[in-house]
Amino acid sequence: MSFSVAVSGASGYAGGEVLRLLASHPDVTIGAITAHSNAGAPLGELQPHLHALGNRELVETTVANLAGHDVVFLALPHGASAGIAAQLPEDTLVIDAGADHRLEDPIAWEKFYGSAHAGTWPYGLPELPGHRERLRGARRIAVPGCYPTSSLLALAPGFAAGLLEPGDVVIVSASGTSGAGKSAKVNLLGSEVMGGMNPYGVGGGHRHTPEIEQGLSAAAGEQVTISFTPTLAPMSRGILTTATAKVRPGTTATALREAWSAAYADEPFVHLLPEGRWPHTKAVLGSNHTVLQLALDEHSGRVVVTCAIDNLTKGTAGGAVQSMNIALGLEETAGLTHQGAAP
Amino acid sequence: MSFSVAVSGASGYAGGEVLRLLASHPDVTIGAITAHSNAGAPLGELQPHLHALGNRELVETTVANLAGHDVVFLALPHGASAGIAAQLPEDTLVIDAGADHRLEDPIAWEKFYGSAHAGTWPYGLPELPGHRERLRGARRIAVPGCYPTSSLLALAPGFAAGLLEPGDVVIVSASGTSGAGKSAKVNLLGSEVMGGMNPYGVGGGHRHTPEIEQGLSAAAGEQVTISFTPTLAPMSRGILTTATAKVRPGTTATALREAWSAAYADEPFVHLLPEGRWPHTKAVLGSNHTVLQLALDEHSGRVVVTCAIDNLTKGTAGGAVQSMNIALGLEETAGLTHQGAAP
Amino acid sequence: MSFSVAVSGASGYAGGEVLRLLASHPDVTIGAITAHSNAGAPLGELQPHLHALGNRELVETTVANLAGHDVVFLALPHGASAGIAAQLPEDTLVIDAGADHRLEDPIAWEKFYGSAHAGTWPYGLPELPGHRERLRGARRIAVPGCYPTSSLLALAPGFAAGLLEPGDVVIVSASGTSGAGKSAKVNLLGSEVMGGMNPYGVGGGHRHTPEIEQGLSAAAGEQVTISFTPTLAPMSRGILTTATAKVRPGTTATALREAWSAAYADEPFVHLLPEGRWPHTKAVLGSNHTVLQLALDEHSGRVVVTCAIDNLTKGTAGGAVQSMNIALGLEETAGLTHQGAAP
Amino acid sequence: MSFSVAVSGASGYAGGEVLRLLASHPDVTIGAITAHSNAGAPLGELQPHLHALGNRELVETTVANLAGHDVVFLALPHGASAGIAAQLPEDTLVIDAGADHRLEDPIAWEKFYGSAHAGTWPYGLPELPGHRERLRGARRIAVPGCYPTSSLLALAPGFAAGLLEPGDVVIVSASGTSGAGKSAKVNLLGSEVMGGMNPYGVGGGHRHTPEIEQGLSAAAGEQVTISFTPTLAPMSRGILTTATAKVRPGTTATALREAWSAAYADEPFVHLLPEGRWPHTKAVLGSNHTVLQLALDEHSGRVVVTCAIDNLTKGTAGGAVQSMNIALGLEETAGLTHQGAAP
Repeated sequence: MSFSVAVSGASGYAGGEVLRLLASHPDVTIGAITAHSNAGAPLGELQPHLHALGNRELVETTVANLAGHDVVFLALPHGASAGIAAQLPEDTLVIDAGADHRLEDPIAWEKFYGSAHAGTWPYGLPELPGHRERLRGARRIAVPGCYPTSSLLALAPGFAAGLLEPGDVVIVSASGTSGAGKSAKVNLLGSEVMGGMNPYGVGGGHRHTPEIEQGLSAAAGEQVTISFTPTLAPMSRGILTTATAKVRPGTTATALREAWSAAYADEPFVHLLPEGRWPHTKAVLGSNHTVLQLALDEHSGRVVVTCAIDNLTKGTAGGAVQSMNIALGLEETAGLTHQGAAP
Repeated sequence: MSFSVAVSGASGYAGGEVLRLLASHPDVTIGAITAHSNAGAPLGELQPHLHALGNRELVETTVANLAGHDVVFLALPHGASAGIAAQLPEDTLVIDAGADHRLEDPIAWEKFYGSAHAGTWPYGLPELPGHRERLRGARRIAVPGCYPTSSLLALAPGFAAGLLEPGDVVIVSASGTSGAGKSAKVNLLGSEVMGGMNPYGVGGGHRHTPEIEQGLSAAAGEQVTISFTPTLAPMSRGILTTATAKVRPGTTATALREAWSAAYADEPFVHLLPEGRWPHTKAVLGSNHTVLQLALDEHSGRVVVTCAIDNLTKGTAGGAVQSMNIALGLEETAGLTHQGAAP
Repeated sequence: MSFSVAVSGASGYAGGEVLRLLASHPDVTIGAITAHSNAGAPLGELQPHLHALGNRELVETTVANLAGHDVVFLALPHGASAGIAAQLPEDTLVIDAGADHRLEDPIAWEKFYGSAHAGTWPYGLPELPGHRERLRGARRIAVPGCYPTSSLLALAPGFAAGLLEPGDVVIVSASGTSGAGKSAKVNLLGSEVMGGMNPYGVGGGHRHTPEIEQGLSAAAGEQVTISFTPTLAPMSRGILTTATAKVRPGTTATALREAWSAAYADEPFVHLLPEGRWPHTKAVLGSNHTVLQLALDEHSGRVVVTCAIDNLTKGTAGGAVQSMNIALGLEETAGLTHQGAAP
Repeated sequence: MSFSVAVSGASGYAGGEVLRLLASHPDVTIGAITAHSNAGAPLGELQPHLHALGNRELVETTVANLAGHDVVFLALPHGASAGIAAQLPEDTLVIDAGADHRLEDPIAWEKFYGSAHAGTWPYGLPELPGHRERLRGARRIAVPGCYPTSSLLALAPGFAAGLLEPGDVVIVSASGTSGAGKSAKVNLLGSEVMGGMNPYGVGGGHRHTPEIEQGLSAAAGEQVTISFTPTLAPMSRGILTTATAKVRPGTTATALREAWSAAYADEPFVHLLPEGRWPHTKAVLGSNHTVLQLALDEHSGRVVVTCAIDNLTKGTAGGAVQSMNIALGLEETAGLTHQGAAP
């Protein structure tokens, strides 16, 4: 059997990546492909790499066009998905790649996003403790942010195992520019970004901060506080996250390794690397995989975890498809079995 | 049924790309994975993006290790494949990603490669006139060079249709650095290549010159002479070829468009773009597709064809797998149906 | 004595580069720095690398603000400079980095630019035969385009020496993205350009075509016809031009080398490399230098000249400052003596 | 008067950058240019961007060749400079761009470098409290490491002002690949580094850790402990450092801003940006400038300082020339007044 799928926001990077993965998915049929200002154009004009779908015409993002599918992916600007989702049948699987339904705390939502909270949906990061179960049979899924995906995968095992202090977490992430979207902005021009790096959203203001804290706190069973600094790197795709926390007294390198190793032993997409190897974003480019490594810095009493994902795949569309597979009862890796391209 | 496949040269870029594609191929089982100095290491150390094969151990590149498979891919330095191939059974499909068996003219071979000619095998570019038929059932296949692949796909339809003058072809190609291989050389360091471009092999000396002329001459039915200049571009993958030839008197833009359009109308991997769109190497990155566009410059009496491929996929490993599929009677697109990653 | 200089278009790449060079020029004082929509902002907001001028305020681009300086640089959109120049005193040195006054042929201007021709000014490429003399004492100077600068420096010596056929010139250039300007466009986003290459303006339509032909024809003493294809490379700065022409019968490699060598023997900024070395755009990044190399391809009867410049320096602002120096009677290399940065 | 200067290690990136800056320095004359395996070659073969010195011949790195100059720059592998320095006259200014003489603690040296400590020289970071004075008239100067330069400039003002807790500093830096040197290594190939990021030396093992702690501890007047993680970014030049420390109770954003502002108010090369602007490594590319910004994250009780330098300029050769200027009594900015190139 094949599930029919509609994809909105198809002219952007997130929507394009959803389509890229779905085009090779054995269990889905791609139905409506929608956009806003680009409605009417063939997809090939906007996503010239999607040869299998190049002649498909983009239609307007309306409830009417999205309805009637088994699955609807929403890759829309923040604030746009709640209204549409409310008008789709309850038994349609709606997967929101935007932020609207990620946070549990309405106050945090309003502080960071400045609008009314639209509610909380099951969080599409199955590798977190207890999350996979909540996704089975779900009909509404919030896709995690790209920085939270890498940060939570980096640190959750240590908090779940009770090895880390909750009050002193520092996370610095470098992201490729596709994470900033496809809108034309001078500071994102190739001439501006090639050959350089810059931080942004420094000092706690980034919207992913409460999302990361929410996930780590759930794993820890107590409030975790983080300092998060995102930076922009001169590459199209990829996130490299360096996450560090104080270890509780007496925590050994062996205990740390065992915690992470156990957490991901059966995960198809998350890999604690053998000792001596370090993550590289090119090792996950275009794939749904996550690679990470950890080191205990006894001098400073910190564990340093480095973690690489592709922000568009595991960090957005791949995680979304993985969650869809779980919700629909499909093989979790369906449509995600290709290897990423390197070098 | 599944064909068993061995891959030699697995620590390099060409061998790695063959493995990347085969790992998702529905009709093959990957057997021996061989290397030279890296024998004994797990593949994951050398090709960290190949998660499906990360624990497989590299074995020494010997006839004994390669024998006993239905298919053997040779991704070896020039001159190394003939000796091995001679010791493999005649009914083993041997696919040589190196140059040894591409040229028909022993004199040209000796002039450009400086060694004795090892013989000529069917040439794995099925989109050239008559070539697909020669590949069916073949048990020895020479994989075209990456520059020749893009150059021949760019110009062959015009020569086959008799629209182009044979004596005045100019080809300038820009290649990503993976085309220069994985050997450690100062001029290929990231610090040297990022942010800059340079030519090399200027003035007719590049080994791909006779290979391009061979293919164009066969299409034209007369000797075609080219001026070929390769350049190195600051990107890992991709070739953008600009190929231009004088058109014969009276040739119209419509006639040109019809020739290319007809040549590739039924090809699954070669796409003449709609008018107004131009090739971009990112539209084929990691995929076996080729995109091209042509323009008649009436002022200079030339057709200018621009053509983009991924040098490692269509230009090497993808073309090799496509040819394997044809030789084995499989679906031609098997293992090559995923979309490339962009942006 | 110090000449006062005003710079318009200071928020763009060309204007920024003029200011970068002038900030270290020993014989000038920087007066008005003007912009359009950014007037009122400190320069440091728009050109954060210009630390010496970071606190200078941008003023509106008006004749009143530009008047009263010894020299005025115009780095404005095409069509905007003629009107301003007409209102500046005749003894003010006006240097137009735009295209308005480059072409001698009003018909060619109107065909490629679609507006009335504003007249022709002395052409600021002193290395072309006879051009340096015309610049001495000039009070109006048209700065050459970046592609024409590299193309003319590549081929003019051969045409001036009568060694090349005029009817069959092919030029393919790769440019960094800064050549496309600082306007926010989706196709110039870092995510779009990093890791890929694409052609544009193929088939004779690029506005630099008549400008290149004008310069080569002047050197040759007869009409030269070219096929010109520009491509966009994933780097901020730099142009690598591959220019090839048929040599006249009997032309030897020695004769070719002597022609280029003689043409540039005394030039401070144009360097024919020793045999065996090839141009690299990183060897001229940020400097006013040009490096080139030539090869005779006897097989195709063509000379292939490869030439590297920095499109913003020698290709725009550096050439402009060099021309200013000549016009004002200053040392030609004043303000241009720093070495470019590599790697 | 002009000081004669010899530069060793001229074929590498550090030596090349010293020469680039000295070539435009008004008060020096470049004498011997030395190398090891490349002795005998013209500099232009190895540093093709140094047009002013392209014909200079590299001579062997020997005491005899280096002696007889007023100043000697040593850009040699770690461990090689002490022996040479010991044989140079005491009144020769010897500036060591390597690590040999940076650390004060012989035990730390031996732990991180594995050899006997060669002694401690005045540390060439004049912006640190008390350091400029120690450099005046010095005849031996240790050039700081590139990561320490950015880390110390980022955090020293806060420690000097007593605003920061000493026990919980986290520093994550991203460096361009030139920081890894010019030796041919597979992991530094362009194909490997373009389009990706990776960490290395995680967990306290990087040799710059004790150097950073030494400088911060001196500023704080007590032992400062850091967690330092370096990462490799896909760019040739530049370091972006994110440094964060807990603030002492009651510390306000205003107090923090005043501390940094006061520390750098008179510094010609270190700039605390106006609020609302963030550092970008392209704003310092090729120049000796440092740009930084700070933010108080009240949520986590941390100050986050982001700091951008060019690793080869301020991080190595520019800092070395600046220190030379101070030692010789020259204008501190001599030879360093050009603006960096952007975009």
